Amino acid sequence: MAEKEFAQKLTPKSQDFSQWYVETVLRAGLADYTDIKGCMVIRPYGYTLWENMRDALDRRIKATGHENAYFPLFVPESLLKLEAEHVQGFAPECAWVTYAGNDELEERLAIRPTSEAIIGSIYARWIQSYRDLPVLINQWANVVRWEKRTRLFLRTSEFLWQEGHTCHRTYEEAQEETLRMLGVYKDFIETELAIPVVAGQKSESEKFAGAQMTYTVEALMADGLALQAGTSHNLGQHFAKVFGIKFLDEDNVEKYVWQTSWGVSTRLVGGIVMVHGDDNGLILPPRVAPCQTIVIPVITTEHRAAVLEKARALHAALAAAGIRTRADLDESKSPGWKYNEWDLRGVPLRIEIGPKDMAKNQVCIARRDLSDRAQKKAFIPEDRMIETVRRLLDEIQTALFNRARDFRDQNTRTVANYAQFRDIIESQRGFVVGPWAGSADDEAKIKEDTKATLRCIPLEQPASVGPCFFTGRPANRIAYFARAY
Amino acid sequence: MAEKEFAQKLTPKSQDFSQWYVETVLRAGLADYTDIKGCMVIRPYGYTLWENMRDALDRRIKATGHENAYFPLFVPESLLKLEAEHVQGFAPECAWVTYAGNDELEERLAIRPTSEAIIGSIYARWIQSYRDLPVLINQWANVVRWEKRTRLFLRTSEFLWQEGHTCHRTYEEAQEETLRMLGVYKDFIETELAIPVVAGQKSESEKFAGAQMTYTVEALMADGLALQAGTSHNLGQHFAKVFGIKFLDEDNVEKYVWQTSWGVSTRLVGGIVMVHGDDNGLILPPRVAPCQTIVIPVITTEHRAAVLEKARALHAALAAAGIRTRADLDESKSPGWKYNEWDLRGVPLRIEIGPKDMAKNQVCIARRDLSDRAQKKAFIPEDRMIETVRRLLDEIQTALFNRARDFRDQNTRTVANYAQFRDIIESQRGFVVGPWAGSADDEAKIKEDTKATLRCIPLEQPASVGPCFFTGRPANRIAYFARAY
Repeated sequence: MAEKEFAQKLTPKSQDFSQWYVETVLRAGLADYTDIKGCMVIRPYGYTLWENMRDALDRRIKATGHENAYFPLFVPESLLKLEAEHVQGFAPECAWVTYAGNDELEERLAIRPTSEAIIGSIYARWIQSYRDLPVLINQWANVVRWEKRTRLFLRTSEFLWQEGHTCHRTYEEAQEETLRMLGVYKDFIETELAIPVVAGQKSESEKFAGAQMTYTVEALMADGLALQAGTSHNLGQHFAKVFGIKFLDEDNVEKYVWQTSWGVSTRLVGGIVMVHGDDNGLILPPRVAPCQTIVIPVITTEHRAAVLEKARALHAALAAAGIRTRADLDESKSPGWKYNEWDLRGVPLRIEIGPKDMAKNQVCIARRDLSDRAQKKAFIPEDRMIETVRRLLDEIQTALFNRARDFRDQNTRTVANYAQFRDIIESQRGFVVGPWAGSADDEAKIKEDTKATLRCIPLEQPASVGPCFFTGRPANRIAYFARAY
Repeated sequence: MAEKEFAQKLTPKSQDFSQWYVETVLRAGLADYTDIKGCMVIRPYGYTLWENMRDALDRRIKATGHENAYFPLFVPESLLKLEAEHVQGFAPECAWVTYAGNDELEERLAIRPTSEAIIGSIYARWIQSYRDLPVLINQWANVVRWEKRTRLFLRTSEFLWQEGHTCHRTYEEAQEETLRMLGVYKDFIETELAIPVVAGQKSESEKFAGAQMTYTVEALMADGLALQAGTSHNLGQHFAKVFGIKFLDEDNVEKYVWQTSWGVSTRLVGGIVMVHGDDNGLILPPRVAPCQTIVIPVITTEHRAAVLEKARALHAALAAAGIRTRADLDESKSPGWKYNEWDLRGVPLRIEIGPKDMAKNQVCIARRDLSDRAQKKAFIPEDRMIETVRRLLDEIQTALFNRARDFRDQNTRTVANYAQFRDIIESQRGFVVGPWAGSADDEAKIKEDTKATLRCIPLEQPASVGPCFFTGRPANRIAYFARAY
């Protein structure tokens, strides 16, 4: 890319958040548009970030007893139609294959928008006995949902995700699994991505098409909008009955299995951008950053060779210590240009090395997450570089989480009545929390008035709850509302 | 699955290789058929094998300077049609999306059969200057080629693969990359999968649609048929000219880039089955086996608890040593049944533990790859189990490779004339090697006569070559022929 492109400042986040988001994603090299409507390309820097996220989640999915598998991309129309709610939910946004070569297909095939139907039809053949249960399978795959309005990572016609699909002997086991995976998501997103989430249940109107109950983890973006970061569904026996997934139980009675499904997607990359980024671009959580340290030599004509050699040596030492690192040795660019470039790309730590540092056997380490110049930079003896980098990466991970949590908490406001609710949604956005005893119609009314939706009924509830902020009726739980992506 | 299914013997390999293959794949749990024509499901055991293969290759791809990215699933028809040879090669087997929801698309979209067209159109925007080169990107993805006749793993309408797509400044760099990645494939397939391959160049008639030159690694299956195990293409400037992938060179002249692409797919899983398996099922190379050791307790009523506890302890010790291991503690199955089951699934080493072994502080270790009973089993002091397992896994990996190489060498036959050629292809199959100076028409004639195709012109050539076995004309190189999958 041409140098001028990077010299140009990003649109400030506070001025136009949407524009800032798009510029950051494009210019940091996370993704790019394509000629195919609604489809993006995930560029190497963005894909490496996704690989690190995927690996961190995959370890957790396997540690909880699941295995990966791969199911077909295609869902025959007849199969998709078997579950009425499911097809209503997904058919309007399905991409349909009608021809193979020059031959028209006898039956149209949907590109999977999600795989409950195709997997359900296969599980029906695999499961016969209670001994075959539980079935604990996950899939990493691409899915397609044709979207009218798209946004890089957050809403694209094709996206990457994982979808877990499990079968159990009892309702209780399925419910336990549903909540276990919700907990895995919360732990993954908070620990690895440094994004605090509220775990809770979706209302009837917001639940997954075909599910008995949907649980969600909801995050708050820096513009005050909520992002659904992952969902876990207790499917009950809906799909089991439709696809005939039955087992002979120990008591010799044939029963339908109880199912769950759960997924997170590449939209989480957008979440990282929107939660942590600043006016200079990305700030990536060290645990998933493609590059954790960038080594930049500050070259003078006199000491050129020695400084370049030292920069290479520092980079090699970091790499040998298992730190994901790069050295930017391009001599056609100035150090200042490189600082901006790697700040834009969100690298947590910058190692600057120049002749003065070398004379003092020190390196300069600058933190991406701090902006105060005095706090940001530290001069460290070279022989303590590795341990300092390790410590700072941990500190940054924690600092990013704490900052995001503080922001979330400051932007979570409790209301007692609808006037307050409307006022806050209009003026301040964020999460608005209140006692809730409303209906689906009430939710629709609120959405029409304010564009806010019921994000979740949190798992953690207060001991006592006042009357419903909307209906005034006695309520026994609070709910989170927000405008959302 | 019901016990009887496993009690039943596989069709012997020597009796009906095709039937043996299908039964082995299905009953070992590698894959299963689905209701969607030509599409299979890769079951957890097969997918874990693929994950291990993918990780081993991905490390090599990254070590040679490539990064992963993700490009769209869809190729607009107009884009696919730009390169004439390419569309002729792939359009007949493309799956076409014509509707999104209820709306007919203005332009049909092919599900990618390969991604040269989509990636080329994107590279055209990314590349401006010689400073942007080389571009070294790989993608792990699903692709669709609608096949009339399918076979589990070997030929399915949808399959998983990686496809590398690189751009270079000069022809020489592109050619070097093409051969580098062919070398990576050879190393990966021989080292990790224990499958010896012949590396060589494809003839004009067998090369990739749109490539200037195609290189291949060819393996020989146990039934004497060849399997194309991976290909690497020097694309020249064909796609660059069609998609306008240009760069301003250091001399200020605008030039087209030189490209390569290269891929291997899940068909390699089929190769592992067909090269190493025997009448009892799979034999998996230890380096990629999902499970390297299976611990099986030999329980007596008297010592039940102690033996189970010891089996668990051995399993834990193996896992702690980083060995991929399982313990089969199912008390509803006999040890003998389990031996057959885990033999079928190709686990390299079985650890048997019973009261007698415990009394002697020993374990019994049985090798899957040997059938002679005396050689197969060894009793090892328990405190030497880990080191012995490590050593045996290495030995098995080497032994499988050597056995496959010996088989390949014994089934590679040199011919001087076409009568010999036909006789060997008809009676013995295998690789048939001879001096070659024929044309594409000659290849077609040979294929019509014998179903054998020119597999490759090997990179390693003898010092002198006799006259062409088919045309009798002077030849300057030898070629490998075989019937192939």
